Amino acid sequence: MPTILLRLAYDGTAYAGWQSQKNGLALQDVLEEALEKVLGERVRTRAASRTDAGVHALDQAVTFSTTLPIPTDAYVPALNNVLPEDVAVRSAREVPEGFDLQEAAEAKVYEYRILLAEVRDPLLRSRVWRLRPPLDVEAMREAARAVVGAHDFSAFRGSGSEAKTSVREILSADWRQAHGELRFRIEGKGFLRYMVRILVGTMAEVGQGKRSIPDFRALLQNGDRMRAGPTAPPEGLTLIQVRLREGL
Amino acid sequence: MPTILLRLAYDGTAYAGWQSQKNGLALQDVLEEALEKVLGERVRTRAASRTDAGVHALDQAVTFSTTLPIPTDAYVPALNNVLPEDVAVRSAREVPEGFDLQEAAEAKVYEYRILLAEVRDPLLRSRVWRLRPPLDVEAMREAARAVVGAHDFSAFRGSGSEAKTSVREILSADWRQAHGELRFRIEGKGFLRYMVRILVGTMAEVGQGKRSIPDFRALLQNGDRMRAGPTAPPEGLTLIQVRLREGL
Repeated sequence: MPTILLRLAYDGTAYAGWQSQKNGLALQDVLEEALEKVLGERVRTRAASRTDAGVHALDQAVTFSTTLPIPTDAYVPALNNVLPEDVAVRSAREVPEGFDLQEAAEAKVYEYRILLAEVRDPLLRSRVWRLRPPLDVEAMREAARAVVGAHDFSAFRGSGSEAKTSVREILSADWRQAHGELRFRIEGKGFLRYMVRILVGTMAEVGQGKRSIPDFRALLQNGDRMRAGPTAPPEGLTLIQVRLREGL
Repeated sequence: MPTILLRLAYDGTAYAGWQSQKNGLALQDVLEEALEKVLGERVRTRAASRTDAGVHALDQAVTFSTTLPIPTDAYVPALNNVLPEDVAVRSAREVPEGFDLQEAAEAKVYEYRILLAEVRDPLLRSRVWRLRPPLDVEAMREAARAVVGAHDFSAFRGSGSEAKTSVREILSADWRQAHGELRFRIEGKGFLRYMVRILVGTMAEVGQGKRSIPDFRALLQNGDRMRAGPTAPPEGLTLIQVRLREGL
C-alpha cells in the first residue's frame, strides 16, 4: 500500500496539540478530516513530533497509507483547499514501502523565541515568551553548550512522559540574539515530553541570575525535575525541521 | 485640562478598524473602555491614523484629556492590565496645552508585507499578502520612486474618502526584499483612504508584468481610480511610526 509523506506548517494557537485526544481539537483530527474529504476514506496519520498544545510547526513530517490512486502532485492543492487557514501542507511525496517515520527521522530542530521587552507585543503574542530585560545571554549560551551530547534528561522531563529511557542525544544547542529577541535552537534525535520548554525555562533562570551554571550542569547529573526551572510557555516553541536520513 | 499622549501597538485582525462605528468592535472602543476602567470616567480619544479593519499598528499615537490627577507613569501598567492581549500601550506622556495631534504629526510611516510563496504560511496568515513568485522587484522599485513627491492621488483613493483634496506629499517610498518577502515602506504627511493598499495592489501588477511603468506613472496624472489596480488586503499593512514635529 503506497505511503505518502506530507510536510506541514501550522499555527498551534487554536489546537490541543498534534495528537488526537478526548478534550479539544487536535491537529491530527484536522488533517485526518481533510484527508477524508480528499480521499473519500478515513486514514490514520503518524507524525514525527507530537507537538504540545499551542506549539507551532514550520516543517512537521506526517505519513499515511492509502490504496487510492491519487497523483502525488494533487495532494498539496487539494488538502490546502479544505484545511483551515492556520494549517497548510507544504509538500507531498511517495516514500518507499516499509518507510517508518520514527526510524527515518534522523533529527528534529526546534526553535524557542524569547522577546526581551518591558511591554508585551500584540503582534508577537502567540509566537514568543516575553521576559523583561536584561538577560545574561553569555551565561545562557554556556548552559546551552552543557546540554550538547548524550545526557539523562530526567530533570527536564514533564510528567506524563511515557518514554522508556530519559537519555537523549543533543546534536547542537545555542542561543542567538537579534532584533530584541533571544532565539534558542536545539537539534536532537529525539526529545522527552516538555523537554525543550523545561530547558528554556531553566536557562532563562540562568539568564536572570537566579541560577548558576554549576547548578544547571548538576541537573544533567542528578535528574531531579523538582530542582529544574519552570516549563516555558508553549507559544514560544516551533518545530522548525524534521531531518530524514540521507537517501530517504 | 492635561492632555496625555499614548503610543499603542495592536494586532488589527479582530477589529473593525480604529474608528468607532455602528458595525463591529473598533480599537477606539476598546481603548476608551480600558481608559474608563482606569480613570473612572469616559474620555474621547483621537488617533493620528484611522487604520482600517484588519490593519495593524506598532506605534499608533493617541491623545485624550482628563482632569484626573493620575501619574503619567501609571498609565502603561494600568491600561495593559485591562486591555485585551492584542492591544498594548507602549508609552504615555503629558503633552503641552493646546497640543493638536493632527497638526503635530509630521509624518506617518507604513509598511506593507508581501510573502512570495507557492503555498500559504499559517504563521504569517494575518501579517502578509501572499503572492506567487516571481515578481519583478526592480520594476516595483521604479514605480515606488515615481510616487515620491507631491501628487494628486485620486486614482489611489478609496470610495468613502472624505478628504477635501487628494493631493498628498510622499517623503519616501521603497521596496526591499528579504527572507522570501517584499516589504514596502512609505512615509508621508498624510494618506487618503485605502491609498497605501491601492498603491500596493497596483505596484504588484507592475511586478507581475501586467502593467507597465508608463501606465503606472499615468495614474498619477489622470487620477482615474477605475484604471488603478485592486486594493491589497488589509492584513499586510502595519502603521510603523507616527513622527511628531521636533520639540513635541
